[in-house]
Amino acid sequence: MNVDGTPYRTIWLASDGEAVEIIDQTRLPHAFETMRLETVEDAARAIRTMQVRGAPLIGATAAYGVCLAMRADSSDAALAAAREVLIETRPTAVNLRWALDEMAAVLVPLDPANRIEAAYRRAGEICDEDVEICRAMGAHGVKLIRAAWEVRGQTINILTHCNAGWLATVDWGTATAPIYMAHDSGIPVHVWVDETRPRNQGAALTAWELAGHGVPHTVIVDNAGGHLMQQGEVDLCITGTDRTAANGDVCNKIGTYLKALAAKDTNVPFYVAAPSPSIDWTLDDGAAIPIEQRDAAEVTTIAGRDAGGNVTEVTITPDGSTVANYAFDVTPARLVTALITERGLAKPNRDGLAQLFPEHDDENPMVR
Amino acid sequence: MNVDGTPYRTIWLASDGEAVEIIDQTRLPHAFETMRLETVEDAARAIRTMQVRGAPLIGATAAYGVCLAMRADSSDAALAAAREVLIETRPTAVNLRWALDEMAAVLVPLDPANRIEAAYRRAGEICDEDVEICRAMGAHGVKLIRAAWEVRGQTINILTHCNAGWLATVDWGTATAPIYMAHDSGIPVHVWVDETRPRNQGAALTAWELAGHGVPHTVIVDNAGGHLMQQGEVDLCITGTDRTAANGDVCNKIGTYLKALAAKDTNVPFYVAAPSPSIDWTLDDGAAIPIEQRDAAEVTTIAGRDAGGNVTEVTITPDGSTVANYAFDVTPARLVTALITERGLAKPNRDGLAQLFPEHDDENPMVR
Repeated sequence: MNVDGTPYRTIWLASDGEAVEIIDQTRLPHAFETMRLETVEDAARAIRTMQVRGAPLIGATAAYGVCLAMRADSSDAALAAAREVLIETRPTAVNLRWALDEMAAVLVPLDPANRIEAAYRRAGEICDEDVEICRAMGAHGVKLIRAAWEVRGQTINILTHCNAGWLATVDWGTATAPIYMAHDSGIPVHVWVDETRPRNQGAALTAWELAGHGVPHTVIVDNAGGHLMQQGEVDLCITGTDRTAANGDVCNKIGTYLKALAAKDTNVPFYVAAPSPSIDWTLDDGAAIPIEQRDAAEVTTIAGRDAGGNVTEVTITPDGSTVANYAFDVTPARLVTALITERGLAKPNRDGLAQLFPEHDDENPMVR
Repeated sequence: MNVDGTPYRTIWLASDGEAVEIIDQTRLPHAFETMRLETVEDAARAIRTMQVRGAPLIGATAAYGVCLAMRADSSDAALAAAREVLIETRPTAVNLRWALDEMAAVLVPLDPANRIEAAYRRAGEICDEDVEICRAMGAHGVKLIRAAWEVRGQTINILTHCNAGWLATVDWGTATAPIYMAHDSGIPVHVWVDETRPRNQGAALTAWELAGHGVPHTVIVDNAGGHLMQQGEVDLCITGTDRTAANGDVCNKIGTYLKALAAKDTNVPFYVAAPSPSIDWTLDDGAAIPIEQRDAAEVTTIAGRDAGGNVTEVTITPDGSTVANYAFDVTPARLVTALITERGLAKPNRDGLAQLFPEHDDENPMVR
C-alpha cells in the first residue's frame, strides 16, 4: 500500500536483483526505515528481532532467506543449514515452516547450480501468492462495506484489533484489505483502531499504515470499543486470525474475544479475515489451542518517543507486582458473523468452511 | 491500609492538628511521597493535578480545603471564595459538590470565630463516614469471597478493573474493601489487576496498594480478562462505579462493560461495589449518562521510569493519527450479579435498591 503516496510492499528485491529489502517494523511508527538483507543471517535476524512480523511476511522473509543462503553457497549442506537457522527464529510460526518446506520441495531435487534462480523464482511466487490471497479477501470483504454504505449512506465505521494489515503480509493485509479497497473505490470509511496492548500493534502499526495510505482513522484504547458499539459508532468489526479451527473458532490477538462479545451484545456484525493458510483443518475447535504466554516485559515496559525525539523504553508497573502476559484468546464461532476467506464468505462452522474448501474435507476431524 | 507494614489513610491531619497531609498519587507507583497542604490553594492544586483522585477522596480533600481556608480567614467572603476555588478543580465531581455543601451547611450559620473548630470537626466526620461506608461494604462483600472459598477450597481469584481501592477513598476502598478483609481474615485471595488504559490506574495504583498490603496479585492488560474467565481462572469480578442509575446500570471506567460481558458469557459472578453516594436516584437508567471525553494525550503518551530511574513521558502513537479518549462506559444492570452497598447486597434493579434504601423511594423516577 502507499506510504505517503509511494506504493510499497513489506518485502521486495533490491535493484541489484539479489539482496532483499524490508521495512524495519521495530522503528515504526516513529521512523520509516527500510533495510537491506544480504545474507541468510540477515534474514534470520530480521525475523528474530521482529523487524518483520506477521505470519505471511515471516514466511516470505524465510523464503528469501533461503535465496540469500543459496547465493552464497547452493550445496545441500548450505540448504540444510539455512533451514536450520531460519526455523529457529520463531519455532511456532506455521507459515515459517510452510515456506521453508515449499523452498525445500523446489530446491532439494535440483542440481546445486540451478538452485539460485529457482529459489528466487519460488520466493517471488510465495510473495505474489500471498498478495493474491489478500487481494481476493479484500474483493470479497469490500462487498460487506459497500452494502453497509448503501444502507447507511454515510461514512462506514469499522473497528479492528491488532495489526492484520499490510505490514503483517506482503501487501493489502487480511483484515485491512477490504478497508483499503473500500477507501480506494471511494466508499467513505473510518477505522477505529484498537491500541492493542501489550505490544500496541494497533496504535503503532495499523494506525501508521492507515495514515500512510490516507484512510481516516482514530486510535482508541482497547477498553473503548464496547462503548462505541453501544453508541452506534461502529458499523462492523473486522479482525484477523492467527489460527482458525475447523469449526470456525478463531484464535487471535488477546482481547479479540471481548470485542466479539460486545459486537454480539450490540448487534454489530463481527467479521474475521481468515485466509485459508490460517485454517487448521485438524483442529476440532478452539478450546484445544494452547495460548502462548509471552515475556512480562511486554506488559511492564513500553517504548515511545521521549521529548527529545528518541525512542525510549519506560517501566509502567510497580516493582513489587507480578505480571502475566497471554498473547492470544479464542473467540468462539458463535460470536463470528462470517469468515472472510480468499474464496468468499464462509459461515463460521464446519459446513460453511467445507463448502468453500471441499479439498480439505478429509482433514476435518469430524470426518476422519 | 498498610504501606509496607505501616497503616495509612489517604488524607490525615498533620501532627500540628492544622495542616493536612496526603499521598502524592501522581508519583505512584514509582515513588511513595506524602505532601503537606497548608492553604486552600494547596488543596485545590492537589485535586486539580490529581495528586488526590477518586470521588470520596476528592470530597474529603475539599472539606479539608475549607478548613485550611477558615484557618487563614473565617469570614463569609473567605468561605464563599474557598467554595469557588475548590468547585472549579473538578466541576463534574459529585462528591466534591456534596462535601462543599456539607461544609457550608455547618459553617454558614456559625459566627466566624467558631468556624475553624467546626470545620475541622465536620471534615474529620466526612472522612470517618467514608471509612465506615467502605468498611461496611467490605463486611458485606467479604461474605461472597468466603462463600466462594468454602466451595472451592483453594485460592479465590478476583478480577478488578481500574482503581476502586483505598487510594480512591479515605481507607479500605470500595471494590477492594472485601478483598482486604478477606486477605486480613486469612482467606487466600489473588487479584487479577486490569492495567486500565489509558491512565493505567490499575497497573499504577491498584497493583501498588495491593503490593503494599501484601495481597497476592498479577497485573494483566485490559485485553486479557476475557481469556482468563474462559479458562476458569477468575472466580468473581468486583469493580467500582462512578455513578449508579436507579435501575442498577453502572457507569464506571471505560472497559468495565467488556469485562461484564465476558463474566456473563462464562458464568463468572460480576459484583459492583456501589456505595450509596454513587447512586443517582433521579437517573432512570444508564443510557442518559453523558460520557466524558478526556484529553487525547492520555492515550498518545504514557509515563514510566526510564533506565535512569527518572519518570519520563513518551509518545506511543504516530503523529498522523487522530485519537479519541472516552473515560467511562455504562454496564447494563442485566450483566451485574449484585451491587455491594454499605447496607448489604442489592439486586441490580429498582426494587433491589429501594429495599435497602427506602428513604430514596420518592427520588425514584418511576415513582415521581
